[in-house]
Amino acid sequence: MFEAAELGRKLSREDFDALAPQLRNDLLELQFKLRSADFPVIIVFAGVDGAGKNETANLLAEWMDPRWLVTRAYGTPSDEEGERPLYWRYWRDLPPKGKIGLFLSSWYHGPLVDRAFGTISVAEQDERLERIVNFEQTLADEGALILKFWMHLSQKAQKKRLEKLAKDPLTAWQVTESDWTHWKMYDKFAAAAERLVMHTSKGHAPWTVVEGQDTRYRSAVVLNSIRDAIGRHIEAREVARQVASEIKKKPAKAKVSVAALESQPSILSSLDMTLTVEGDEYNRELQEQRGRLANLHRKAKDKGVSTVLVFEGWDAAGKGGTVRRMTAALNARDVQVIPIAAPTEEERAQHYLWRFWRHLSRAGRVTVFDRSWYGRVLVERVEGFCSEEAWRRAYAEINDFEEQLAEHGIVLAKFWLHITPEEQLARFKLRETIDYKKWKLTDEDWRNRDRWPAYEAAINDMVERTSTRLAPWTLVEANNKSYARVKVLRTVCDALEAGVKAARGKK
Amino acid sequence: MFEAAELGRKLSREDFDALAPQLRNDLLELQFKLRSADFPVIIVFAGVDGAGKNETANLLAEWMDPRWLVTRAYGTPSDEEGERPLYWRYWRDLPPKGKIGLFLSSWYHGPLVDRAFGTISVAEQDERLERIVNFEQTLADEGALILKFWMHLSQKAQKKRLEKLAKDPLTAWQVTESDWTHWKMYDKFAAAAERLVMHTSKGHAPWTVVEGQDTRYRSAVVLNSIRDAIGRHIEAREVARQVASEIKKKPAKAKVSVAALESQPSILSSLDMTLTVEGDEYNRELQEQRGRLANLHRKAKDKGVSTVLVFEGWDAAGKGGTVRRMTAALNARDVQVIPIAAPTEEERAQHYLWRFWRHLSRAGRVTVFDRSWYGRVLVERVEGFCSEEAWRRAYAEINDFEEQLAEHGIVLAKFWLHITPEEQLARFKLRETIDYKKWKLTDEDWRNRDRWPAYEAAINDMVERTSTRLAPWTLVEANNKSYARVKVLRTVCDALEAGVKAARGKK
Repeated sequence: MFEAAELGRKLSREDFDALAPQLRNDLLELQFKLRSADFPVIIVFAGVDGAGKNETANLLAEWMDPRWLVTRAYGTPSDEEGERPLYWRYWRDLPPKGKIGLFLSSWYHGPLVDRAFGTISVAEQDERLERIVNFEQTLADEGALILKFWMHLSQKAQKKRLEKLAKDPLTAWQVTESDWTHWKMYDKFAAAAERLVMHTSKGHAPWTVVEGQDTRYRSAVVLNSIRDAIGRHIEAREVARQVASEIKKKPAKAKVSVAALESQPSILSSLDMTLTVEGDEYNRELQEQRGRLANLHRKAKDKGVSTVLVFEGWDAAGKGGTVRRMTAALNARDVQVIPIAAPTEEERAQHYLWRFWRHLSRAGRVTVFDRSWYGRVLVERVEGFCSEEAWRRAYAEINDFEEQLAEHGIVLAKFWLHITPEEQLARFKLRETIDYKKWKLTDEDWRNRDRWPAYEAAINDMVERTSTRLAPWTLVEANNKSYARVKVLRTVCDALEAGVKAARGKK
Repeated sequence: MFEAAELGRKLSREDFDALAPQLRNDLLELQFKLRSADFPVIIVFAGVDGAGKNETANLLAEWMDPRWLVTRAYGTPSDEEGERPLYWRYWRDLPPKGKIGLFLSSWYHGPLVDRAFGTISVAEQDERLERIVNFEQTLADEGALILKFWMHLSQKAQKKRLEKLAKDPLTAWQVTESDWTHWKMYDKFAAAAERLVMHTSKGHAPWTVVEGQDTRYRSAVVLNSIRDAIGRHIEAREVARQVASEIKKKPAKAKVSVAALESQPSILSSLDMTLTVEGDEYNRELQEQRGRLANLHRKAKDKGVSTVLVFEGWDAAGKGGTVRRMTAALNARDVQVIPIAAPTEEERAQHYLWRFWRHLSRAGRVTVFDRSWYGRVLVERVEGFCSEEAWRRAYAEINDFEEQLAEHGIVLAKFWLHITPEEQLARFKLRETIDYKKWKLTDEDWRNRDRWPAYEAAINDMVERTSTRLAPWTLVEANNKSYARVKVLRTVCDALEAGVKAARGKK
C-alpha cells in the first residue's frame, strides 16, 4: 500500500514558489467563503513519525486565518479527559460550522500504536476502527467535510528524517525516545497502519497517502488537496440544497394507510396505569430509597463511577418533581441537572449530539438530563424539524453514543414518564387555575396534545430501537405521582448498585 | 430492544381479509414495474426460531410472480460451498436487477449462532458484522434495495409456537432438536441478536423488528413494508436519475491544475526497464521454475489450497504469452483462464463484482484472470464508464473482496506487466506486419495509447490503494518478455510455497 509513496517525489524551490502565491490566496478565499457555509471541515494528519505532520500543519496555520482554524493535538488523556469516555475530548474540540479543525495524534493514534505493540488483537483493532467509522459517518451525515492525510516515509527515509530533526536545535524537541522505539518496530507499524487506512477509508472520509520526505512536495500536495476538496464540497452542498428544494416542491405520493395495522397497541398500552402508592407507604419507600441512593452514591463517587439519568415524558407527566425528589438525597455539588430546551447559537453550529457530549461530567458525578438527545426521534421527528433520513439514522447514532458511556462504566438509566391523555387534561386544567403554576402551561403543550398518536408511535419506535442491554428504557406509570417517584428512585438505586459492583469487579 | 415486539399485536381474520386483496394486487403491480427497474431487491428474514419466517416467506411466494422472486435458504455449506470463501454462496444467489431475492438463514445466521454459543467473542462478532455491513453497503451503493425483517417471539411465546408446530403433522418437520436447544439458550440468543440488529441496522439496509406470534399480523406488516419500500425506492431512483441528468447539464468547475504536482514520478517510473534474461539462462530458469510450479501445485491440490492469479498490463505487454508459458506446467484440468472482456447480459444485470465471484474455482485449482475486477479502477475510470464516486469506492470493495479470498487461504498474486511507450509502439508496428498477429491490434489499442498518462495515474492509485500485505501487487518489467515470464513464474511459485506452508501450519 505504501510503496507508491516511496518514489522520491519532490518539488524544487522554484516550482514551489511558483505555485505558492495562488494556492495561499485560494485557501484564504475559500476560508472566507466557508464562514457562511453550513458545515465544518475536519482535517486529520497522521502517519509515520517524522513524516512532517507538524511542518505541514504549521504551514497551513501560517497561510490561513487563525480565527477560523483550530489545531488540536492529543497526548495522554488529562485528568479531565480520563474521567470521561475517550471520544469526549474529540467531540468537545470539533469545529463549528464554517470553521476548520486540524487534528494531530487524533482518534487514530490509539488503534495504531496499540496494534503495533500487540496490546490489542486484529479483531480488537477492527472493533476500534468500526467506532471511528461510525464517528466520522455521524459527522459526515450532517454535512461535515472530513479529509485525512497519511504521511508516509520508508524505514530508511524515516531514519534520515529523525536524525536530521535531532541535529537541528530548532527541531530536536520533536524527536523523542518513543520515535526511535517506533522506528525499530517499523514493520509492525506499517502492518497496523495498512489495516487502519484500509478499514477507515470511506467515501465520506477518504485517506490520501502522501509521500512525506520532501517538505515542499508534501505540503503542496496536502494544501492543494484541501483547496480542491473545500471548493468541491461548497459546490456540492449548494447543489444538494437546490435538489432538496426541488424535491420538496413535488407532491409526495400518499402512503397507503392500513388502519388495522396502525391501530395496534404500542409499548405504552402494556402499562398498568392504575398502579399507585399512597400515604405512609409512599413516605416509607421514599425515605428508604433516598437513604439507599445517598449511600450508593458515596460508594460510586469513591470508585469514580459516574451516573447519567435521562428523563423524557409527556408534558405534565411530573419529570421536574420526580427529579427534585431524587436529587434532594444527593450533595448538590455532585449533581447537575441539565434542562434541554432550544439549543444555543453555539450549539446550533455543531452536530446535535455535541451539546450532550459537552455536559458529561467528571468521574463520580450524577448528570440528569431533563429531556435529552431523544428529542431527535421525538419532537424533531413529529414536528418535522429534521428529515426522516436524519431521525431514522439517529437510532444508530444514539446507540453508539450510549455504548460509549456504558463501556466507560457510566451508569445509565433512561425513563419515560407516562400518563394517560385524560390525566394530562386534568393536570393542564389544574395548572390553569393555580397562579404559581400557570407559567408552566403553554400553547405548545396544547398543540403537542393534539399529536398524541404521532408521539405514541415515535415513543414505541424509540423504545424498540434504543432499549438495549447496555442502556435500557424504564417506562414509568406516572398517573400516580408517588408511584412514579418511588419507581424511578428504586430503578436508579438498582442501576447504581449494579454499576458499583461492576466497578469493584474491574479494579 | 425486543420488548416492543411482545405486545400481543394481532389481526382478526376479517381485518386481514379486508386488507389482503389490495396488498396482493399492489405487490404484483410493483413486481411488474420492478422488471424494468435498474436495481434488485434483497429481502432478509431472520429472527427467533418459530417466529414464522417460513410461513410469511410462503405467503410472499404465493402472492407474487415466482418468475421474478427467488427464495434461498442456507444450511451447512455443501462441498462446493465449503471449498470457497463463505460469501461465495451468497454472491452467486444474488438476484439480478428487476428481481427479488428472499433470503432465509442468510449471512446473519453464523454471527448470531456462534456468538450465542460463545464460540466467538464480542469483538469477533463485531468483526463479522462489519463484513456484513460492507457487503450490504457495496450492494446498496450500486442501487440495490435491501430490506431486513427480524421476527421476534418472547421466550414463552416461542415455547408455545414450537409446541404448536410440533403437534401439527403438516408443520412438525419445521421443529428440530436444535430449535429446542436454542430455546433453552433464549437469553444468550437475545443478547447476540440485539448486538447484531444494532450494529447492522444502517440507512442503506435497515432492520424492521416484527412481532411474530400472530400469523396474520406478522405477514401483513412484513408484506405491507415491502410494498411501501419498493414503491418508494422506484420513485427515489427516478428522482435521482433526474437530478443526475440536471447536474450533468451544469458545466463542472474546472479543477485547478498544478503542473508541478502532476508531473511527479509514478510507481511505474521506479522500475528498471533494462532488465533482461537471455538465451540459456532463460531456458534454464524457465525449466526450473516450471518444475517447481508443477511440484508445488501438486502439494497445493492435496491440501485444497486454491490459487487466484490476476494479470493486468498495457496492451501488447505480453500477458497472454506469459500466462501460456506458466499454465503449460500444469494439468489443464486444474487450471482455468478467465479472459475478461465486456460483461454478458446476465453479468450486466448484477453488481460488477458478481462475475468475479462466480468464477472462483473449487479447492486446489488455479484460476487465472486475464484482466480482472481492476477494470473498474483502470479502464472504467479512465474512459468515464463509471462515476468518480463509483471507482473511488471500488478500492475498498476490492480490498474487502481480496481479504475474503486471503482469509479463506487462497493464494493470491497480482501482476502488472509494464512496458515503455516506445516498446509498445514497436510491438504494435510488428503486429501490423505479421499476418497471424494482425487480429490482435484494434483501434482501441491506439486510443488507449493516447491516454497513457491518465492510465499511469490510475495504475499508481490502484497500487497505492490495493497493494496490501494480504494481496500485494507485483510490478513486472516486461520490455524483455523472457525476463517478465521468469519473474512472474518465480513470484507465483514463491506465493504458492508460502500458501502451502501456511496451510500446513493450520491443519
